[in-house]
Amino acid sequence: MAQINDHFLKLKAGYLFPEIARRVAVFAKNNPQAKIVRMGIGDVTEPLPTAVVQAMHKAVDEMAKRETFRGYGPEQGYEFLRDAIAKNDYQARSCDIAADEIFISDGAKCDMGNILDIFNADSTVAVTDPVYPVYVDTNVMAGHTGPASEDGRYAKLLYLPVTAENNFTAALPKKRVDLVYLCSPDNPTGNVMTRAQLTQWVQYAKANQTIIFFDAAYEAYITDSSIVHSIYEIDGARDVAIEFRSFSKLGGFTGVRCAFCVIPKTLAAKAADGSLVELHKLWMRRHTTKFNGVSYITQRGAEAIYSPEGRKQARALVDFYMTNARLIREGLTSLGLHCYGGVNAPYVWVKTPGKSTSWEFFDSLLRDCHVVGTPGSGFGAAGEGYFRLSAFNSRQNVEEALHRMRDKIRA
Amino acid sequence: MAQINDHFLKLKAGYLFPEIARRVAVFAKNNPQAKIVRMGIGDVTEPLPTAVVQAMHKAVDEMAKRETFRGYGPEQGYEFLRDAIAKNDYQARSCDIAADEIFISDGAKCDMGNILDIFNADSTVAVTDPVYPVYVDTNVMAGHTGPASEDGRYAKLLYLPVTAENNFTAALPKKRVDLVYLCSPDNPTGNVMTRAQLTQWVQYAKANQTIIFFDAAYEAYITDSSIVHSIYEIDGARDVAIEFRSFSKLGGFTGVRCAFCVIPKTLAAKAADGSLVELHKLWMRRHTTKFNGVSYITQRGAEAIYSPEGRKQARALVDFYMTNARLIREGLTSLGLHCYGGVNAPYVWVKTPGKSTSWEFFDSLLRDCHVVGTPGSGFGAAGEGYFRLSAFNSRQNVEEALHRMRDKIRA
Repeated sequence: MAQINDHFLKLKAGYLFPEIARRVAVFAKNNPQAKIVRMGIGDVTEPLPTAVVQAMHKAVDEMAKRETFRGYGPEQGYEFLRDAIAKNDYQARSCDIAADEIFISDGAKCDMGNILDIFNADSTVAVTDPVYPVYVDTNVMAGHTGPASEDGRYAKLLYLPVTAENNFTAALPKKRVDLVYLCSPDNPTGNVMTRAQLTQWVQYAKANQTIIFFDAAYEAYITDSSIVHSIYEIDGARDVAIEFRSFSKLGGFTGVRCAFCVIPKTLAAKAADGSLVELHKLWMRRHTTKFNGVSYITQRGAEAIYSPEGRKQARALVDFYMTNARLIREGLTSLGLHCYGGVNAPYVWVKTPGKSTSWEFFDSLLRDCHVVGTPGSGFGAAGEGYFRLSAFNSRQNVEEALHRMRDKIRA
Repeated sequence: MAQINDHFLKLKAGYLFPEIARRVAVFAKNNPQAKIVRMGIGDVTEPLPTAVVQAMHKAVDEMAKRETFRGYGPEQGYEFLRDAIAKNDYQARSCDIAADEIFISDGAKCDMGNILDIFNADSTVAVTDPVYPVYVDTNVMAGHTGPASEDGRYAKLLYLPVTAENNFTAALPKKRVDLVYLCSPDNPTGNVMTRAQLTQWVQYAKANQTIIFFDAAYEAYITDSSIVHSIYEIDGARDVAIEFRSFSKLGGFTGVRCAFCVIPKTLAAKAADGSLVELHKLWMRRHTTKFNGVSYITQRGAEAIYSPEGRKQARALVDFYMTNARLIREGLTSLGLHCYGGVNAPYVWVKTPGKSTSWEFFDSLLRDCHVVGTPGSGFGAAGEGYFRLSAFNSRQNVEEALHRMRDKIRA
């Protein structure tokens, strides 16, 4: 009989967001009058920038005429978009990244899962803890881990705790790993890595011949000018890092689907015979064989974000959410809660009050304030005792949530 | 040092379409006056149906207003589209397929590559020969094959020849395999499988506990009413088959990107401990973890194909290309060439004249007629001596190509 990939069976059944949905559904059923404010999942709420809307209408019209119709595009993405990215996101920051090192895709989540295809099944992997669950789950599926223990940690995976105690700074691994995931601005903690910290990581990667997966999906939310937006702003990163980015949180594209990854041509890994193989070539083969490009209409929409109007409108979107983040941070801080993040990231990472666990705080916040957040322990064992609130919401909802918490929550 | 997936190195460097592009580029450079007609790659040329264009404009406008904006959609696709598919493509043909057994994606090519994620790395696989190269290459990447031999065949992969000698009917494998790919209407041969043949395959799969990957990307091109459009029209197929479909060739969506696969909840495979695992559950986990859904705008466009106007317009598109197919078939037949396919499929599969190989015919057609097609041998060793012409073209180009061939090609 056909056999399954048994690694899937190691995945824990109760994934974080379905469990949240389940508890919210039970509460809503028992409290039909409650007006629940959802600050859990990091999904944008504001409409697309006008420049994007106009560009997509224009592209739809092009697809309606034989003379301007476009069939299959290049799997790696249209040059107009790759050029705009190379110029604006990299060369403008003095990063030595060329357009043909950029691969357009339909999502950073997809890229970060699929990238494992080109690496060895025995790869050793490090992640921070807490961490975006997709990094972990895709490595479980790829067979890079053993089974999960009771606290949810998988054997063979190296966890690097990031908590208030170490100022949310992951220590460099004591043993070498093949692959390491870094996310900055970080989901879920809202932390950003400094230039000095990133330089240390690049040096570690060079010394240990490790590949860094650098997730910069939230780079648009950086407000501190000393923080780098790309890992390629660090000397030597071209030789050790793959960067992942997305238009989801920059242009409100979560429902439109456009992202990209950067694989410098100088990046290599070893074949079984010891020879060096360019990862760019392998990913090109993977991307052109198992993917067929992003919608032309979507790519024109993404391109419009780089126009002068598009930039202004996207900036306004980001500023809107960052004002939410500030309001949440200030509001909770004034209640005596310890808040982290929310300055260079759209997530506020809150220490739960007293001795309450993440899920206990989740339940009390839902029960007393009708507000939904995300339990920190859902992102990893070291997230226990923390709670994530997302700034992706209407101003009205944010203010309403804070108003309710004012009377009910005490540190 | 980080190690690559060595299976990638087994892939032959000279992939078919890049080699075609290279030869055409050389010819074009040496013959700048030549007006080359391209009948190689199967890419649509006609604009999107008006109903699709209207639906996409409307969806873009919804994304421009806070009240109707949509962020992340369900990874499996919106219910409105899954319902339309279940009702129109399956229940209307008395196939017992429910909406929640359908997964929307951005391409059948993606689905057919990604589906291997949920199967064991030691799976044994059968493909027809000639065959759509993506089936083979994705199995090479997944480690299901040994290295390639000189004729391009990979060790461990079971090839089932389909040629004029066996009436393009693959024999059932003599040894059992875990997974088998069937494509009907077939790319590249343009052949369709009869109900009786498909019934035999379902029986084989039941007897051998084999999973059938049924690629029905060209089902809209079936003109013969005795031919089934879905494998689920065959009794018992729910227990053995995954079906893949696409809006690419039905609605002209090659540049828009929307497809789906069907995984019945009754379909299972074995875990290492011998227990049965529902493939639907595994794919749900894979799809929700490594994919983030298709653009809302695209899904509204796809939905519009099922409206009364959309159906009519999509039908007109298909009829247009099928008239091209008929013209090609009749034109070449009148020159004494043996033609197959082109009746229930947009591809005409031509026996090369005399003793010329596929590539020899490619070169002479390019040199003498300035027409580009696809060498049959590029699809597999058993495709040697054949040539694929695609009906996806303007009428003018088809007529021009036939006009040129009339004077230059002799059987």
